[in-house]
Amino acid sequence: MGVWEYGSVGVGECGNGYTPTLPYSYTPTPPTSLHSHTSTPLHSTHFFTMQNPRVISSIPEMQTLADQVRREGKRIGLVPTMGYLHEGHLSLLRAARKVSDVLVMSLFVNPTQFGPHEDYQTYPRDFERDRVLAASEGTDIIFAPAAEDMYPKGYTTWVEVVGLSDKLCGQFRPGHFRGVATVVTKLFNIVKPHVAFFGQKDAQQSIIIQRMVQDLNMDIQIEVLPTVREPDGLALSSRNVYLSEQEHQAALVLSRSLDLAQKLIQNGERSTAVILSKMRELIAQEPLVALEYVAITDLTTLEDLKEISARALIALAAKVGKTRLIDNCIVSL
Amino acid sequence: MGVWEYGSVGVGECGNGYTPTLPYSYTPTPPTSLHSHTSTPLHSTHFFTMQNPRVISSIPEMQTLADQVRREGKRIGLVPTMGYLHEGHLSLLRAARKVSDVLVMSLFVNPTQFGPHEDYQTYPRDFERDRVLAASEGTDIIFAPAAEDMYPKGYTTWVEVVGLSDKLCGQFRPGHFRGVATVVTKLFNIVKPHVAFFGQKDAQQSIIIQRMVQDLNMDIQIEVLPTVREPDGLALSSRNVYLSEQEHQAALVLSRSLDLAQKLIQNGERSTAVILSKMRELIAQEPLVALEYVAITDLTTLEDLKEISARALIALAAKVGKTRLIDNCIVSL
Repeated sequence: MGVWEYGSVGVGECGNGYTPTLPYSYTPTPPTSLHSHTSTPLHSTHFFTMQNPRVISSIPEMQTLADQVRREGKRIGLVPTMGYLHEGHLSLLRAARKVSDVLVMSLFVNPTQFGPHEDYQTYPRDFERDRVLAASEGTDIIFAPAAEDMYPKGYTTWVEVVGLSDKLCGQFRPGHFRGVATVVTKLFNIVKPHVAFFGQKDAQQSIIIQRMVQDLNMDIQIEVLPTVREPDGLALSSRNVYLSEQEHQAALVLSRSLDLAQKLIQNGERSTAVILSKMRELIAQEPLVALEYVAITDLTTLEDLKEISARALIALAAKVGKTRLIDNCIVSL
Repeated sequence: MGVWEYGSVGVGECGNGYTPTLPYSYTPTPPTSLHSHTSTPLHSTHFFTMQNPRVISSIPEMQTLADQVRREGKRIGLVPTMGYLHEGHLSLLRAARKVSDVLVMSLFVNPTQFGPHEDYQTYPRDFERDRVLAASEGTDIIFAPAAEDMYPKGYTTWVEVVGLSDKLCGQFRPGHFRGVATVVTKLFNIVKPHVAFFGQKDAQQSIIIQRMVQDLNMDIQIEVLPTVREPDGLALSSRNVYLSEQEHQAALVLSRSLDLAQKLIQNGERSTAVILSKMRELIAQEPLVALEYVAITDLTTLEDLKEISARALIALAAKVGKTRLIDNCIVSL
């Protein structure tokens, strides 16, 4: 596991996903120092060839560096990640690289967005692998703080996007989006990016962050990039490593159900009740997949829609075995 | 009302307040254009003689200017106010002026920190008077946004310092400190200050903001300056204009009760129960004053203390007629 090998087959379901069309593979290089603070000077050019990113774990060090970079008139791009990078993350790094003078990838498995019975402890982690992959995309800085520095004793401040955070996944993961909004606020205040990149895969997260940025007047451009999928349609997720081969096959019904919805809409269906019912019917055929929800909502308010008109979000979550997966697409007429 | 005339008498009760020792008076100048965007160029020196501050109401304009100033390596100081300036605000402007290349005073009566039955509508406002006073202290920029720009339709993001916000005044003003934390976050993201100034008069607010800044990694220095008092001891507040002369006299019992507490502690009393009981006794002698609370708490957690040891906050709130007043002092052994 953990070796990326993609062919050139794209399925492009729901019009939002893409599969990388260039073969890509990851071969680990021999491990080097985990926190090589002084390993690589900060470059101001866009050209990198597997340079070691500078790894920063100190919050004030990152802030001081960000100030310095900004005073030089340079543009900081941030790709926030929880590590265990996949092609989805790499597509964000690649896009960020193009528009950033200094490309920062944060790597932090944020405890406050996991529920008490969720997989914080077992969430896959492999710093060395992530370092190599980040380097391969020209990342300048990996910001990897310690949890106890991000949430020291007495920590008590939370950012909440009220309403949006309780819908869709929020119903099943109380507190999750409060944790996300809070950690993203913190990362923004530490890395001070001009532009930050998120994946459409986490549709609700992207919508919440965009709303938060707008509401709190954070002077940061938010870019949301298409979901990257396996050639068989499965949306990439760090959690896919949890899946057995059988579960992986079963999980394909999720993206297939989004394809079905898209096809129904293309054929003129506008009733979300009809579309949702047919999606549920399809998913129900997979005994290994337990649907949590599927919804068709407004793209801004996440309110359920009765009819498809203009643009809509089709989002779902399901447990496949013990693994919780999400997927979504945006449809536009 | 609204004419400041101070003599040279200082009382210095509780060791934290001060009364201005130089005579100070405000004489309004003839009104000029309310939003004189182009009236005054931005200066980079510290020397001002009643120049008109530049008035900015546009959020993006303020952000762009802040970026420009920061790129020039200049230091931005922010004094957030709700206007109707008194000597307390002016003491903040004066201190900020000394350490700022660009001094920004925000002037915004923040609706989200008022309860539904509080005085948002009637809160005293006088832009022209504030403009003249801000100018007299060398303010470069008055940032005065419109409420509908700060909280547009669909606004839904809140910053909450959980726990601290429910104590002391929070018990009587649910949602108040959420509104404060949120608007201060927004102002910080808009004005992008290096340093921001608050008054010790709003002790709980200062403690909450300091906690928020630390928790959310806002890279901003927070300065809290002593409460400024009338020569008779009354803590300055924009709301003092609501008081009749009789109420003003009655309200003096509040600072006197803090003096009493300080004296008791100086004389060796350590039991907060004893101190609080004697404060309550004193305040109860004023029929026009209805005490909301008086508490002696830890300076960081705002938890009630049983014994005075090291440093403590003594804080109170009371209604004097229809006017809610607060006062406090910090004692240190």
